[in-house]
Amino acid sequence: MTSTRKSIAIDMDGVIADTITNFIAWYEKDFGIRIGKEAFHGKPEMEGLPDNAVRKYVYSPGFFRSIPVMEGAKEAVLKLAEKYDIYIVSAAMEFPQSLIEKYEWLHEHFPFISWKNIIFCGDKGIIGTDYMIDDHVRNLDVCKGKTLMFTAGHNAGIESHTRVNNWNEVLELFDKEVGE
Amino acid sequence: MTSTRKSIAIDMDGVIADTITNFIAWYEKDFGIRIGKEAFHGKPEMEGLPDNAVRKYVYSPGFFRSIPVMEGAKEAVLKLAEKYDIYIVSAAMEFPQSLIEKYEWLHEHFPFISWKNIIFCGDKGIIGTDYMIDDHVRNLDVCKGKTLMFTAGHNAGIESHTRVNNWNEVLELFDKEVGE
Repeated sequence: MTSTRKSIAIDMDGVIADTITNFIAWYEKDFGIRIGKEAFHGKPEMEGLPDNAVRKYVYSPGFFRSIPVMEGAKEAVLKLAEKYDIYIVSAAMEFPQSLIEKYEWLHEHFPFISWKNIIFCGDKGIIGTDYMIDDHVRNLDVCKGKTLMFTAGHNAGIESHTRVNNWNEVLELFDKEVGE
Repeated sequence: MTSTRKSIAIDMDGVIADTITNFIAWYEKDFGIRIGKEAFHGKPEMEGLPDNAVRKYVYSPGFFRSIPVMEGAKEAVLKLAEKYDIYIVSAAMEFPQSLIEKYEWLHEHFPFISWKNIIFCGDKGIIGTDYMIDDHVRNLDVCKGKTLMFTAGHNAGIESHTRVNNWNEVLELFDKEVGE
């Protein structure tokens, strides 16, 4: 990083994108049954819906493009961008059809994020930021900086990273970091 | 990085992909004139062809998918992968239509590179590898590891990074690194 400002890597799915809400919406559209968010609690995300539907949707054209923004994410990222270099880092490479959808999604919902600050990768161990906000322990575990674990059903009960339950808690935490 | 092996970030265009050869081929197809590689010497890549053709091609569907592999690149990367963690790192985000083309290109020509080791980004300052092989000084300048500058017309005369003229020279250099 050439900047003297500190940097934050922010994940997309489950962090700035409310992916679970879209899984539920697509399942209701397909099967006419509205599953509650609690169905995703305490298990791998892939097992959150019956009929292997999660695995089907993550490979379906249009799924990633249609995800709603996580509550409070846009305002919070805008505020963090005043003091930190923000990088949006998504492990999109697992689902190559999502690459352009994720790019267009960011362009629509987070137009203030430059293309220079977007990273689509596989293993996040290569990312060298000062902070990482992610819902997946596998990403946080390989981060060399400070880690914030954004609450998701699949990380219930895990205490190896600093937990944040919503974007207000992220902002509160960074308020405390000032002057460190 | 969780591995104890050292890591190398390897660029695509101008390093494992012979992008200049494709610029020349596409220009000949369009205008019937075969430009020599020397036209790209000592100037920004965008100015290498008349008619603003380079800028047109980098936004053209199919351009990145049809680039030939750089001479010796496949064999050399395979050899380096025996001892190092290889990450293919491309500043593809500037040309979003190239994202899926670059993914498919890698899948065809470098099938031994896992999706976990592919990174498409903008600013490479976020990449935390031990080595970086790239033709662009703007990428090498923000790398925190050791840098190798792959010779290209646009980096002629620049001596701020260790120059390598071809993939044989890259292998020779890494042979010398053994035991460091």
